[in-house]
Amino acid sequence: MEKNFKLTIEYDGTNYHGWQKQKKDKTIQEEIEKALFRITGQKITLIGSGRTDSGVHALGQVANFKARTHLTATIFMKALNSILKSDIIIKNCKEAPLSFHARFDVKSKTYHYFILNKKLPRAIGRMYHWHIPYPLDIKAMNIAASYLVGEHDFAAFEGAGSPRAHTVRRIFQAQFVKNNDGMLIFKTEANGFLRFMVRNIVGTLKDVGSGKITPEKFREILLSENRKNAGATAPPHGLFLVRVCY
Amino acid sequence: MEKNFKLTIEYDGTNYHGWQKQKKDKTIQEEIEKALFRITGQKITLIGSGRTDSGVHALGQVANFKARTHLTATIFMKALNSILKSDIIIKNCKEAPLSFHARFDVKSKTYHYFILNKKLPRAIGRMYHWHIPYPLDIKAMNIAASYLVGEHDFAAFEGAGSPRAHTVRRIFQAQFVKNNDGMLIFKTEANGFLRFMVRNIVGTLKDVGSGKITPEKFREILLSENRKNAGATAPPHGLFLVRVCY
Repeated sequence: MEKNFKLTIEYDGTNYHGWQKQKKDKTIQEEIEKALFRITGQKITLIGSGRTDSGVHALGQVANFKARTHLTATIFMKALNSILKSDIIIKNCKEAPLSFHARFDVKSKTYHYFILNKKLPRAIGRMYHWHIPYPLDIKAMNIAASYLVGEHDFAAFEGAGSPRAHTVRRIFQAQFVKNNDGMLIFKTEANGFLRFMVRNIVGTLKDVGSGKITPEKFREILLSENRKNAGATAPPHGLFLVRVCY
Repeated sequence: MEKNFKLTIEYDGTNYHGWQKQKKDKTIQEEIEKALFRITGQKITLIGSGRTDSGVHALGQVANFKARTHLTATIFMKALNSILKSDIIIKNCKEAPLSFHARFDVKSKTYHYFILNKKLPRAIGRMYHWHIPYPLDIKAMNIAASYLVGEHDFAAFEGAGSPRAHTVRRIFQAQFVKNNDGMLIFKTEANGFLRFMVRNIVGTLKDVGSGKITPEKFREILLSENRKNAGATAPPHGLFLVRVCY
């Protein structure tokens, strides 16, 4: 009897070359597929909601896999968590309709990008944020970020060398908030993101925050649809895939 | 001109064999002394407020060193932070009176021990807490913890094989609080702690929380002054040296 299982996954991306299986390097997808092989004896393909890049973390990546098995979702969850290393946790496993596809069916994704905006860096948790020691103008950054909301061609923020036919996306939310631990968090939700898009946006918003460019200049960069105008890519270790909605 | 410098240090203990210099293994003290040698060309001895064990973290370890130097505290702080790896941060450096001694002058130390008391473990931040999946009775644990407050002979909670002439200490605070991130934090302050004392106390309080022993039994263990009666030592990675007062 074929079943379709939906996984919700938390991982610390520090020691992985991203989500997607590769020839040489260790990836999240590969680790979970290897665990599924140990459980079922079958070569199972895991379909993620999308890639996360090398060093990027997830609190709620979603994936699905199909298997002919008598095992239940509860059994899979326990077995996976007992096999996987402690930097990958299956937070939820449940049976989904056979038609469910973790990539095609995505309605929206939410990413958070963590910036420690304090003079001094931190040793504790340093692998989970980007340290920017000089003061950032959050108000200006949030004005710039507001221009992102809505449907736009985000070609200006697409990773170099990764062109897609279609670079139009709809952003539902894009703003910085401060938490009570001194962290500045960029929260954004969209119906999809281009490769490196969040990190390129954050890198360019940092230029707004430091006064290098104005919020209006940021808007021009967005409208230019040209990657060459945008700022540097923010480092991967501040980025978390928080939630995928279907 | 001899000067005495007081350092406040944050470190992630994950990759170190504790504070104190050893023959083979990498330690915090050794890393900082090596950096001081690079800065001054002098073999400088760093005096810590006390050891932290292998894998234990610090948010506010304090140490001092003396040097004949024209360098200022500000220069030392910048130079140390530029040499040290990102898992050791000098949070503060200032000149102290020549008589200041980081170990002898301690008035109190504060430790926090972090427990993730949820069914599921976490991948993110897993090196900074002890995961206990079954429910703990916090009220019972806090009744037991209250018996620790005051002056007692803590021989029952001293690490095996590390007898000191004097095992009497005064605990000012010992209680569990919950933070809004689902973390249970044991906060304790004393005029000094024996080796493994906080971890042995937490390990035994966990037995109270799980119902294995009563708060009254915990009190008997304390009064027995016999290590054999106490519970297992809690793992090091949940423990943080938070503050040292002088």
